[in-house]
Parts: sequence; structure tokens; C-alpha cells
Amino acid sequence: MSTGTHPVHKALASHTDPKALPWVPWAPGHFIKLIKLNPITGQIILFIRSVPGAALQMHFHPGTVVVYTVQGAWTYDEGWVSKAGDVVFEVAGSTHSPRMVGKEDTIVFAVIEGALDFVDASGNTIATENWQTFLKRYHDYCDEKGLTPVDITKF
Amino acid sequence: MSTGTHPVHKALASHTDPKALPWVPWAPGHFIKLIKLNPITGQIILFIRSVPGAALQMHFHPGTVVVYTVQGAWTYDEGWVSKAGDVVFEVAGSTHSPRMVGKEDTIVFAVIEGALDFVDASGNTIATENWQTFLKRYHDYCDEKGLTPVDITKF
Amino acid sequence: MSTGTHPVHKALASHTDPKALPWVPWAPGHFIKLIKLNPITGQIILFIRSVPGAALQMHFHPGTVVVYTVQGAWTYDEGWVSKAGDVVFEVAGSTHSPRMVGKEDTIVFAVIEGALDFVDASGNTIATENWQTFLKRYHDYCDEKGLTPVDITKF
Amino acid sequence: MSTGTHPVHKALASHTDPKALPWVPWAPGHFIKLIKLNPITGQIILFIRSVPGAALQMHFHPGTVVVYTVQGAWTYDEGWVSKAGDVVFEVAGSTHSPRMVGKEDTIVFAVIEGALDFVDASGNTIATENWQTFLKRYHDYCDEKGLTPVDITKF
Repeated sequence: MSTGTHPVHKALASHTDPKALPWVPWAPGHFIKLIKLNPITGQIILFIRSVPGAALQMHFHPGTVVVYTVQGAWTYDEGWVSKAGDVVFEVAGSTHSPRMVGKEDTIVFAVIEGALDFVDASGNTIATENWQTFLKRYHDYCDEKGLTPVDITKF
Repeated sequence: MSTGTHPVHKALASHTDPKALPWVPWAPGHFIKLIKLNPITGQIILFIRSVPGAALQMHFHPGTVVVYTVQGAWTYDEGWVSKAGDVVFEVAGSTHSPRMVGKEDTIVFAVIEGALDFVDASGNTIATENWQTFLKRYHDYCDEKGLTPVDITKF
Repeated sequence: MSTGTHPVHKALASHTDPKALPWVPWAPGHFIKLIKLNPITGQIILFIRSVPGAALQMHFHPGTVVVYTVQGAWTYDEGWVSKAGDVVFEVAGSTHSPRMVGKEDTIVFAVIEGALDFVDASGNTIATENWQTFLKRYHDYCDEKGLTPVDITKF
Repeated sequence: MSTGTHPVHKALASHTDPKALPWVPWAPGHFIKLIKLNPITGQIILFIRSVPGAALQMHFHPGTVVVYTVQGAWTYDEGWVSKAGDVVFEVAGSTHSPRMVGKEDTIVFAVIEGALDFVDASGNTIATENWQTFLKRYHDYCDEKGLTPVDITKF
């Protein structure tokens, strides 16, 4: 069929309805809903839901993060508040502590490249999350609740 | 300050309130709101708004696309409809024609790696959009409307 | 085994001895040896070998390219010559025509994100190469020569 | 000039002759020569030189690594030895300890996405290297030796 310059085959896109996937408890007051994990590159696509007033331990990112705020409001105390509809871009090597400032749960959609390292005030790593630890959290939660996990590493 | 394993400096994130940025006319019935363009890697972060019933010419992607649907509904006629809150992942080398199927405008938030090539039925490239052509569209629109463009290539 | 912050499992690296893989004819005077093709992200890892004096049609890159010169010498006529041991970084959206200037074959090792689009002097796309077209070239060559292809899309 | 589908401007590539850059001491028996550091995405392009018999502390990668062996030989003790001319691809989330097995210095050219985390046998992070820590090592070495650093974060 392709006589032209491009391969006109129908490589199919992958559609996810997040209502079919669980909110997995993460740090206290925070829940993750994993959409896709790329086991080759380490890309993590997920939603994070946080209760009003919740903060998250300071963490460091070796790669980029793109965050779209779906609901609520949060800040890194860097001079702005990200409200529903806003976008935050985090460069590789950034360190910050998100803090929820809305009256309802805050929900963000994020594309994370690689990992996030929780660090103490001196910069020592306390814990790390990457595609593997997130996948384990999802599977452990499914085991606990008797849910059948979807293969979120498949594209 | 950093005595530990990480550089605990405050590399700042970049926050964008999309209300401050214009909807730039694109193909008929489609508008783009550019958030960030990475002139090194070619990453494009944008919103696309499409009127009810609008379709977009078949196109090919050399890299990945992550799409979060903010409002409305659309499909590639691959067996699913992406509604508000859903996520679509498009692998490199995919070719498709989006078609709006909601009653209101459809708005998506997308992270595109590299480009999209509009192709004809034989797979010949008709037009290409990448960070450079999108940036030109934004600047041309600002010129036309007397707006001062923001530097969306700055991180 | 992992009681600490990281998943200490042995995710295995993938080793390739290029001597086991063929040089596939590409444009006249140029040969490609594909190492890995990532069907999710479109990353292309390959060697390109070019005979002395060969030039390659002007082309455009939607993503980045990293080039390490193994042998020989080449230039884009931008004020430098890349000799054995040198590194060239090409930003997304660059357009250029490589020209071999060494006395022996030039061999480069390259990591290409996404694609290269051959363009005419007006910027119209004449042909495109991405992970799919390169894979087809490899398979067609193996068919022609009676070789058993390796799965270079597996990681 | 561009009447066609592509922006035919001459976005220039960046050429590096590594002879102009120093070998900076890293772990004992290992030296790094940084070529490019991307402060947005965290990509690290460098050469690593290691003396015969040297090993490197076990480390974890949140992103991918592509390694081309320029000279010498090394292994992760995973069933292969990477000799001059060979390519190794490391997936995100891999953990390993390289060991030099050649009689001369081993030199590799590597493209690292994000970071490497040195870990102990339990998987606890001991130290981290990313674009920021590598840049500091380069600048500190230049200060110590009275060298003028090149801006390796510029593309």
C-alpha cells in the first residue's frame, strides 16, 4: 500500500480509560494511578491524587517531568501555584517538595522520565521510585485487593 | 548545603498558566496553544482544540505522543473513543487521522516528540510540523494580532 | 534481596558484536549496519559506512542525533571536519548534507531519535527513513542474501 | 527560502574534537571526558577511560545507556565481553558492575539518559552522578589545573 515516502500501515495507538485502573496508596495522603511504564526507557505515565494540605517529601529528578493539573492546586513554593488546567515543566536535576493548596483533592497527570529520588535535607537518598518500584506497588495492591492487573508495560 | 549524594540546589520548575497564551488557528477547525518547545530535542508540549465534527488530515509520527483528553471526545477509528480524562499513547511510526466525536469542542493536552508529517493516501508527505514550524505559527499569529510572544523555548 | 532504596535485580544489558551483522546497502556509496531499533520511541542505533567522496542527499531530523566517528572523516560544510574519535551533536530540526572527505571509508556510530527526512532544495520531503523503513531494509537484505535476521527490536 | 514542507534553514550541528577536552579523574582507575551535558533533559554524552583490571562500584540507571567500546574490553559478568567496536544497550532500571578485562586502558563512548546511582549490596544509594555532579567535577578539575572550561551545556 505504501508507494510514497512513509510507511502507511496502521500502527495502533494505545487507549486507556483511567476509570478501569485503581488508585494505589503511595506516601500518606497521596495515591498513584499508573497508566504506562516503559521498561526500556523508564518513562512513567501516571496520575497522582493528593488530599488537601498534603505535602510530599523533598525529591530529586534525574530526568524531565511534565505535569498537567487536572483538579485542585499545588505549589513548590517557587513563586507560583499550579491550578486546574496549568502546566509545569521540571528540568532534569530539579529538587522540590510539592504542597497541596486546594480545598479539594489535587489530581495531576504526569509524564516522568526515569525516576524520583526522595532525599533528606542533606541531599542523601532515602528512597527511589522508578518504573520497577511503581510496577511492584501496582502488582502488590492488585494482589492485596484480588484485582487482576493490566499489563501497563505493553505498548 | 549538599553534603549528601544529591545536588540539593533549587533548580526551578517552569509554571505556565495557559490562559495567558493564545489559541493559534491551525488546520481548519483546529487551534493550537503552545506551552513549551524544546529546540534541542524537538519536544512539543501543547493543547489542541478542535470544533465538533472536525477531522485532521492523516499524519505520521516519527516519535512518541502522549495525549490527555481535557474535554470532548475523539477517535482514530481503531476501536476506542478517548473521552475527557482518558489517555492515549502513540508509538513512534504510527499513522492515523483523528476525528472529533463530541458535542462540544474537544481539547487535548499532548506531549509530542519530534514532529508530525501530514501524508496522503500513498504515504507521501504533504506537510510537516515540528518545533520550528509551530514556533513560526505562534510568532506569526502574535505579529498579526499585535501580541508580545512569550519565549516558550526557555526552560 | 533488595532491602534498600533500589531494585537490585539484574536487569540484563544487551550486548551486540557488530561483526555478526551485515552492512546493508543504502543510498549509493552508503551502507547501514543496524544495531537496535526501538519500536516504541523510534530510537535508531546504527553504524553508517560511506565510500571516499560520497555525499548524502540533504536531510532533516525531527529529533536529535549523536554521531561518533569511528574511521575516516566527513563534514556538513559548517566549518568543521569530524575525524576518527570526534563527536557531533545534531539538534532537532537541523538540515544538512554530509560529505565524506577522508581517503578511506568513513564509518560513524550514530544514535538517531525518530527519523531522517530527505528533502529537496525547497524543503519538500522526497523520502523518509525511520525505524520501520530501516527494519524493512534489513529484512529485505536478509531475504535476498538468505540470511536469518536477528531481532534488533528486542531489548 | 522554504517553500516546501520543511524548514530548510541551517540549524548547525555541534562538533567536538575530544582532544581539546581533559580526562577528569573519577573513581580510582577511571577517568571521564565530558562532551555534552543537557541541562533540560539530563542527557550525558561522555567518554570513560579505565585502567586494566579496574572495576566500578555497582550502580543503577534510571534511564537508558548506549555504550560503544572504542578500545579495550569490559564486562558486566552477564555472559559477554564488550570489545573494541561492540555496542551495549542498557535498559532503564538496570544494575551492574563493570569490570575491565583488556590489557590496555578501556575507553568507551556513552550516551546516558539521566543519572547513575552507586548502590551497596542492599540497594541503598551511596552516591549519585547526574549532569550537575559531572559538570561540577569538570569545573573543579579546570579550576585545579588552571584550565578554561568549555561550555559543554551549550548546543
